[in-house]
Amino acid sequence: MDSFSFQIPTQIHVGRGKIQDLRNVKLPGKKPVIVTSGTSIKKFGYLDTLRIILSELQIESVIFDSVVQNPTKRNVEEIVEVFRENQCDFLIGFGGGSSIDAAKAAAAMLTNEGDLWDYVQIGTGKRKAFVHDPIPLIAIPTTAGTGTEGNATAVITNEATGEKVGIGCCFPRISLVDPELTINISPKYTAFQGFDALFHCMEAFIAKKAIPISNPLALDGVKIIFNNLATAVNHGENMDARSNMAWGATLGGMVICLSSCTTAHNIEHSLSGIKPAVVHGAGLIIISSAFHRLGAKRIPEKYAALADAIGISMPNQTIQEKAHAFLDAFEQLKFDCGVGKLCLRDYGFLESDFDEIIEKSHVIAGGAFSRDLYEITDSDLRTMLLESF
Amino acid sequence: MDSFSFQIPTQIHVGRGKIQDLRNVKLPGKKPVIVTSGTSIKKFGYLDTLRIILSELQIESVIFDSVVQNPTKRNVEEIVEVFRENQCDFLIGFGGGSSIDAAKAAAAMLTNEGDLWDYVQIGTGKRKAFVHDPIPLIAIPTTAGTGTEGNATAVITNEATGEKVGIGCCFPRISLVDPELTINISPKYTAFQGFDALFHCMEAFIAKKAIPISNPLALDGVKIIFNNLATAVNHGENMDARSNMAWGATLGGMVICLSSCTTAHNIEHSLSGIKPAVVHGAGLIIISSAFHRLGAKRIPEKYAALADAIGISMPNQTIQEKAHAFLDAFEQLKFDCGVGKLCLRDYGFLESDFDEIIEKSHVIAGGAFSRDLYEITDSDLRTMLLESF
Repeated sequence: MDSFSFQIPTQIHVGRGKIQDLRNVKLPGKKPVIVTSGTSIKKFGYLDTLRIILSELQIESVIFDSVVQNPTKRNVEEIVEVFRENQCDFLIGFGGGSSIDAAKAAAAMLTNEGDLWDYVQIGTGKRKAFVHDPIPLIAIPTTAGTGTEGNATAVITNEATGEKVGIGCCFPRISLVDPELTINISPKYTAFQGFDALFHCMEAFIAKKAIPISNPLALDGVKIIFNNLATAVNHGENMDARSNMAWGATLGGMVICLSSCTTAHNIEHSLSGIKPAVVHGAGLIIISSAFHRLGAKRIPEKYAALADAIGISMPNQTIQEKAHAFLDAFEQLKFDCGVGKLCLRDYGFLESDFDEIIEKSHVIAGGAFSRDLYEITDSDLRTMLLESF
Repeated sequence: MDSFSFQIPTQIHVGRGKIQDLRNVKLPGKKPVIVTSGTSIKKFGYLDTLRIILSELQIESVIFDSVVQNPTKRNVEEIVEVFRENQCDFLIGFGGGSSIDAAKAAAAMLTNEGDLWDYVQIGTGKRKAFVHDPIPLIAIPTTAGTGTEGNATAVITNEATGEKVGIGCCFPRISLVDPELTINISPKYTAFQGFDALFHCMEAFIAKKAIPISNPLALDGVKIIFNNLATAVNHGENMDARSNMAWGATLGGMVICLSSCTTAHNIEHSLSGIKPAVVHGAGLIIISSAFHRLGAKRIPEKYAALADAIGISMPNQTIQEKAHAFLDAFEQLKFDCGVGKLCLRDYGFLESDFDEIIEKSHVIAGGAFSRDLYEITDSDLRTMLLESF
């Protein structure tokens, strides 16, 4: 057994109506900035719910509702300004991954000097380490996807350099994972977000950085999502499926922090970097079949374990047969969720874009792909893109 | 899915030589009290290793080496006194569960007013809640058993009232789980401690309080311990088995905090309360076969899942057949570890002691047994004791 280290300090509450747990937890301050993008959370009354709870607790709050879809460094700076102007003392990240990530980065920049990009570890980042603990943050996700409520990473875009990077900056102090807040998500976005969560669990399991604590959680996440995603997509009102997906997504967030994602995520960041219309989950789905077919060839034992985890393997099967059975089940899940035919052409990519996609994937990886258990060459990448075309 | 909440904030480092990670972690203070029982850790040079690391870090430390096997309230008070007299600012719990538990309770009493028993939630305890965060504690276990490095509980004995209770008081800030520190443990104690860890995982899985995060970790712990305990017992020099057992034990500590133990632990506390010569692990082993035979009758689906986890079940088996297969594998493990025949008579119990054992089990449980998924009557208990006689 190789050595490993881990920590997930967040207090996590999961279940229907858990937003109401705000009444029971020890709040880390007296006056929060609520960070949100302010679209669906207003439309569906979630923001009102939160404000009612806070006002009943006699907690005055300030709302910052201008987080954009891929939250920017400027967004983070604006939150810092609003926080200081209003003399707030904690943050509530409320919404999808964008809102919570912007709040995470602001939490760190409120206690650490300089510019956010001083603390970025790749590209034009200055590779400094945060010195001080962040301002306390409560995360309340309204999607079942990124799992950001279960880790310390914020994905932030630098408008000046065009970089979109993950910054390890702030574990939420408390995360309230309430599946009732996901009930109005459309089938399409339920699928996109749900597959993002599934890929977090699958990739954390096959990644080079997988460790003894991440493996059972990742496999359990894969099982939960396989058992519930199609129901959540096709019967969005099914609260049991929504609850399981909410927990599966949180598990996904936890396991990519205990282990890591793989090159599949690099390729997707490259795709959505080139065509911003590519939603993250959709980009991952597009590349997924080709990516995992290659994986099942190179590390079939890992995919056999995935087959075991979802309960489809038989004892008399070879490793290769089990790995294939998993790939088949995966294709079936994509089909059942209505995303079986998603491909690069749907977003207007041309074969002539492949060079740029490959180059950008390397830039995002900081050079060589190093998070996989097997070597992925540019030729492999080109094959994957062609198969995903 | 029912709602659930959890938190394990400890930074955990696992692997050979991890005691050396003291050099790399952010120490939570400048002057620790090292809390230990000072027997084997001196004999085998572990204390010297720790002191060398600290002196190279130019960290002055104070040693409290008088922790007794079942650490007492007086022990805790003594540690508090030594800490204050020497103006220390953090604690290192170094040894078996006793040392770390005494340090945990002292950590809480150094920042909270009054008497330790004010914070005990059963018996003569005053059922108060701790108000302040404890003094930071680094846990360095030298056994693979209690798993106290993975949870907040300290088991402390009150000499005045005869009570031995678990007190939720302090998560270690950092735990360094170094299997090299367990290499000199005798086969007998390796078995006793290893079965304690196994029971933590098994009981956390079958307990009423089991939650989605505890189940995969508990099942993985059961699998790891089934695969490694007999080797650790019979080939104590096998570092891979020792490493896996160290991690299995930490998992056990984590899962009883995420879920709970069951009545098996109450019965054991009753046994060792009546006959202090009964080592905790031995007492658990004695009662285990009868306890789990009853469990496999009442909740066979849980024992079938245990069979699945250790990879011995076949798809064509019924739930009951799988549950039985698990019981058989469990008996084999006991036999392989040389503890297959351990029984109440070995410790001088008489059938006439059964009434007292049953009564004390209830007192420890605070009345009715409430941690099991099924009702356990006094008649069940009497049958178990007879079968364990």
